Amino acid sequence: MRWAEAFIAVDWGTTNRRAYRIDESGECAAEFEDDRGILSLAKAEIPAEVEAIRARLGDLPLLLAGMIGSRNGWVEAPYAPCPASIDDLAARLIRVDDRTAIVPGLSVVEHGRADVMRGEEVQMFGAHVAELIPATCLVCHPGTHNKWIRLDDGRITSFRTVMTGELFNLLRGRGALAELIGGDVSPGEAFRAGVKRGSEDITLTAELFTVRAQVLLDQLAHGDAASFTSGLLIGTDIRLGLGMAGAAELIVMGRPELTGLYAAALAEAGRVAREVDGEAAFLAGATAIAKKIR
Amino acid sequence: MRWAEAFIAVDWGTTNRRAYRIDESGECAAEFEDDRGILSLAKAEIPAEVEAIRARLGDLPLLLAGMIGSRNGWVEAPYAPCPASIDDLAARLIRVDDRTAIVPGLSVVEHGRADVMRGEEVQMFGAHVAELIPATCLVCHPGTHNKWIRLDDGRITSFRTVMTGELFNLLRGRGALAELIGGDVSPGEAFRAGVKRGSEDITLTAELFTVRAQVLLDQLAHGDAASFTSGLLIGTDIRLGLGMAGAAELIVMGRPELTGLYAAALAEAGRVAREVDGEAAFLAGATAIAKKIR
Repeated sequence: MRWAEAFIAVDWGTTNRRAYRIDESGECAAEFEDDRGILSLAKAEIPAEVEAIRARLGDLPLLLAGMIGSRNGWVEAPYAPCPASIDDLAARLIRVDDRTAIVPGLSVVEHGRADVMRGEEVQMFGAHVAELIPATCLVCHPGTHNKWIRLDDGRITSFRTVMTGELFNLLRGRGALAELIGGDVSPGEAFRAGVKRGSEDITLTAELFTVRAQVLLDQLAHGDAASFTSGLLIGTDIRLGLGMAGAAELIVMGRPELTGLYAAALAEAGRVAREVDGEAAFLAGATAIAKKIR
Repeated sequence: MRWAEAFIAVDWGTTNRRAYRIDESGECAAEFEDDRGILSLAKAEIPAEVEAIRARLGDLPLLLAGMIGSRNGWVEAPYAPCPASIDDLAARLIRVDDRTAIVPGLSVVEHGRADVMRGEEVQMFGAHVAELIPATCLVCHPGTHNKWIRLDDGRITSFRTVMTGELFNLLRGRGALAELIGGDVSPGEAFRAGVKRGSEDITLTAELFTVRAQVLLDQLAHGDAASFTSGLLIGTDIRLGLGMAGAAELIVMGRPELTGLYAAALAEAGRVAREVDGEAAFLAGATAIAKKIR
């Protein structure tokens, strides 16, 4: 097969997808992004969508990662259990046909808790292979669902998902805080105050209501409410992450507009975190996995 | 004036309102409930709505409590600061005209936190006056926003609001958990397991995601997800409340379908809580306040 040569890698999520043609030299030669995530597509529409990607980027082997491999996606690629290496992932690829493969997600069950990921694992192994991150570290991967991922000697050993982004969006959409927190979030004083409060031993569902009360009682400016609330949510999030970090190096990987907020929050908690671009990591990971396909 | 005789009391909230004609003997002689909460009414519509209540229940003095006195309601009745007694509340009534009065809410600022309530204060003082609760106790008042309210020697000294019901409704409406937690909540094994987990030192935004992961990995039955999630939210809520309770008697006051869940959660945490019907408390409180009007 021609997997070791040019191929197409797709990070196909719930609401968006990004597709890249990766040429023989490992460079991204063409790409596009759109909002045809799996939520917007019926299962029966997906084969035609896959062929449309080839029509656009080239008639090449296709490696799909992300929610496309979930039960609600196209063809289910069962989770690989942690600890898992890139070889474990490659060994469990689901071959839709001899030139179309789906990357499985990862699962972890520990301390009576279950967790799952789909898509971030490609970035993790890619960042490691490309030496963007060390073989042992804790990676924070912000998004609708933030992930804290332990990499130990190149294997993913554990992770936790935090619904920070989703909760913030739900609160902005409807309910008692919606009219207060629709504004932009910036990592200034109000955000840092939120992070500080969120990092303490608080009850988040109570602390969120104080945002409304503080605005009503003129203790918090209306214009600061979005940043304070974002800080509150991210503060509780990094409190969990710092508990997993120990002395390991901290990395924040993902889209730059989100990694910046988490890096600022970690700085407020006294920890330096290096920011890594998630797209470069995805391309490196997809390329490394494709090379393992025969 | 005729306030000490028959009058109408209205608990006028965000989404609903309940109106009662209270006769000279203090008994409720007629009542109705509908969904004309302040969110569904423009400010200019409210005077006609008030007259419509009189047309329906009698041409009597009218005492209004709840969100109708908020900035987004009809006429703002500024919050009375804690600690506050029923006399403090009566002294701060807003008189729209000589036969129409609005009860102020309460505010508290302590430990750098602000909080507000509107409506529950009438039930609190009513329950005390009618000897439904002791003069010193901690009252849990479930609803869209649960309140933990300290009554000390008949005065409200402190309270915290927890957005438990609102968050549960937001999560049921949209997002990663919505399809899993739409079912009924019952105080059985799954609910108690959620309460137990929620009562621990957890990160709620992470624990919520485990519901999804546990269902995907067959660690939690789909049919149990709603009860487990409700238990998780109520568990974090009562953890806060028990921290405020000390040795004080615990009361759960409100609508019976909600007080039962909180009483079950408190029992799981090893605390006995007495349930008190919020409606009876409201009627007693409105009557006691009306008697103080000259």
